Amino acid sequence: MKPIHHTLALPVWRLIKMAYSYYMPTRIFFGEGELNRLGTEKLPGSKALIVLSAGNSMKRFGYLDRVKALLEQNNTGYVVFDKILPNPIKKHVMEGAALARAEGCDFVLGLGGGSSIDSAKTIAIMAANEGDLWDYITGGSGKGKPIPNPALPIVAVTTTAGTGTESDPWAVVTKEETGEKIGIGIDATFPALSIVDPELMVSVPPMLTAYQGFDALFHSTEGYIANIANPISDMYALKAIELVGKYLPRAVKNGEDQKARAMVALANTLSGFVESTSSCTSEHGIEHALSGYHPDLPHGAGLIMISLAYYKAFVDVSADRYITMARALGRTDVTKPEDFLDALAQLQVDCGVDGLKLSDYQIDNKNFVKYAEHAMDIMPGLFAVDPRPLQVEEVVSILRESYR
Amino acid sequence: MKPIHHTLALPVWRLIKMAYSYYMPTRIFFGEGELNRLGTEKLPGSKALIVLSAGNSMKRFGYLDRVKALLEQNNTGYVVFDKILPNPIKKHVMEGAALARAEGCDFVLGLGGGSSIDSAKTIAIMAANEGDLWDYITGGSGKGKPIPNPALPIVAVTTTAGTGTESDPWAVVTKEETGEKIGIGIDATFPALSIVDPELMVSVPPMLTAYQGFDALFHSTEGYIANIANPISDMYALKAIELVGKYLPRAVKNGEDQKARAMVALANTLSGFVESTSSCTSEHGIEHALSGYHPDLPHGAGLIMISLAYYKAFVDVSADRYITMARALGRTDVTKPEDFLDALAQLQVDCGVDGLKLSDYQIDNKNFVKYAEHAMDIMPGLFAVDPRPLQVEEVVSILRESYR
Ligand SMILES: [Zn+2]
Ligand SMILES: [Zn+2]
Repeated sequence: MKPIHHTLALPVWRLIKMAYSYYMPTRIFFGEGELNRLGTEKLPGSKALIVLSAGNSMKRFGYLDRVKALLEQNNTGYVVFDKILPNPIKKHVMEGAALARAEGCDFVLGLGGGSSIDSAKTIAIMAANEGDLWDYITGGSGKGKPIPNPALPIVAVTTTAGTGTESDPWAVVTKEETGEKIGIGIDATFPALSIVDPELMVSVPPMLTAYQGFDALFHSTEGYIANIANPISDMYALKAIELVGKYLPRAVKNGEDQKARAMVALANTLSGFVESTSSCTSEHGIEHALSGYHPDLPHGAGLIMISLAYYKAFVDVSADRYITMARALGRTDVTKPEDFLDALAQLQVDCGVDGLKLSDYQIDNKNFVKYAEHAMDIMPGLFAVDPRPLQVEEVVSILRESYR
Repeated sequence: MKPIHHTLALPVWRLIKMAYSYYMPTRIFFGEGELNRLGTEKLPGSKALIVLSAGNSMKRFGYLDRVKALLEQNNTGYVVFDKILPNPIKKHVMEGAALARAEGCDFVLGLGGGSSIDSAKTIAIMAANEGDLWDYITGGSGKGKPIPNPALPIVAVTTTAGTGTESDPWAVVTKEETGEKIGIGIDATFPALSIVDPELMVSVPPMLTAYQGFDALFHSTEGYIANIANPISDMYALKAIELVGKYLPRAVKNGEDQKARAMVALANTLSGFVESTSSCTSEHGIEHALSGYHPDLPHGAGLIMISLAYYKAFVDVSADRYITMARALGRTDVTKPEDFLDALAQLQVDCGVDGLKLSDYQIDNKNFVKYAEHAMDIMPGLFAVDPRPLQVEEVVSILRESYR
């Protein structure tokens, strides 16, 4: 997601002139076994703060030990910080940053899924800057101050295929006192180096594979319908949509399918390129409100639950783009924009995630107005890049339609 | 072109495992009027060496004056170096570097076509390093030493759509005493900032538009058949091939067609991404031998002349890729790899460049063995990434078939 503040609600560049930019300076290594690059590539510092989740999977699968051994082989020191929650909270960011300072770490290595790598980014900001993270957050109760110093350099080792954080500057974090789940990103939070090794992903269980794969898909579908989409972001988005449509059901069905894992991983990284060159839309804003209040709701699951109602809202205004997305999802008989909604629903069936319900997570339909207002308050930038402006009642309707 | 030295002649990654990398750290602004960014963006230094061609077009069209005014608006100093030839020579690189040092320039701004921007890159290397440029060149009489210091930061303002140099690290230069035309590139020769403003391209005459457009096309077709092609470079290449096929005839026919100019400019930049993620093949090696000995031969014209014979050589080994390229060029009725050769020949007709002859440039067919051996000597890396290894007799045959 991209917490920018656009004041335009119409794709003006399409009408007047076409101006857009490209910046994605991360060096990325893709491929099975590429984790070993950590032992041989020039790293952006001499002592890493290794950031990982509070769960034990990185240890159990031996990934943490491999990373430590590779850093040693590369004559690089490290300290481990392993407290990150699935929905990372500000307290742990501040704690990690303090540890990095105390230990003299000069770069931050995020190992794991989006939560670990996003936290590596926010820790890298706060290790190099005074004050509180919320001083620098824009939206909600954030003070929106400019960030004086660049972040420490970041290395991302991704073990899931979901957030695209290895190829974008964005990091999502929740202020635990208020439930505000907001994104932040600056040039310095593009990772200096990212490793996308699909061998590390075979251990992701089917349901999480599906949640994360849909998260990647939505980064691309949102970036494709966003009113700041451009020919470069479109290229990444359509390729990612095609790859998710073709390979996600295979990866969910058989986690050992290396080709499917590699292609879903690539789709996810390309979706990060989309987040770097276009933007997520309010689908992510609405989901962040839900999982901000319900931290046990997985981000990808929340997106899946609201997706069909969300995309229905723009079926007229983005008709041509929906037709192109339906084709990218592999449909050959496309005649109308609604075919994208059908293809999306079918993909959810094919990945076994068509039965998800908001009520499974104790999300109460009495709070929908509060959630809608909260989403629009904390992430106005995401609503500003929707294909057309949504009214608060429409957001409530999307939540209602998603409630089963 | 990419002067790397691969020892593999087979696409081994396709057989064993898929490993590839991505790195293209340039910030690029695309669009009509985006030249004005020079006046507002943070530049990578406080005093520019502006490098441009010895011709007077940058002055005549007012581009140099605009760049000067924008730098002044941005409180940035400058010195002008305007000696670059269409095929840049080492002497001018060394002269520009000496001027940058003497004047205390801390970045280099290339303004114009590929020759000016490539020269900005080599000047940026030599302004920051001792010795002679050929100390650092690999191939031919180059000493192949590592380059001790990073180059000065580079800004690229491209006024043509041909070389892709605004989005790759490569610079081509000729050692005038020996006719060696070789490429060099390091991480530091990716431009820090590139501006692709199609408004600056409307002044390019039709024939040069065609030559440059085909150069862009071949960066992508070569990168697509290269044995180091990968899913990321393929994505860029196929998009660029599609855009050239669709828009180059329009841009040649009507230079004021802004949409066509913008799309050919994008195709060219995407072809630079291909050069950054895959590689040119020996088509470029053979052409460099020709234009190294015949400096009046435009690079794009030389490529066009040898292209049909060159691509015929791989029609069997790269059959599937030829079929995909034929489709990308807009053919809907593709059944066999030779359809790509047909589509390429037709595009040359549509752009009015099907009648080019080596003999137009006094290229003597008695020298073909010498040219073939020279090409393989100075650019072995390009031959190493061909779809299959070419023998010297086959290179001679390609030149013979291209001789009319
Ligand atoms: Zn997401
Ligand atoms: Zn070229």
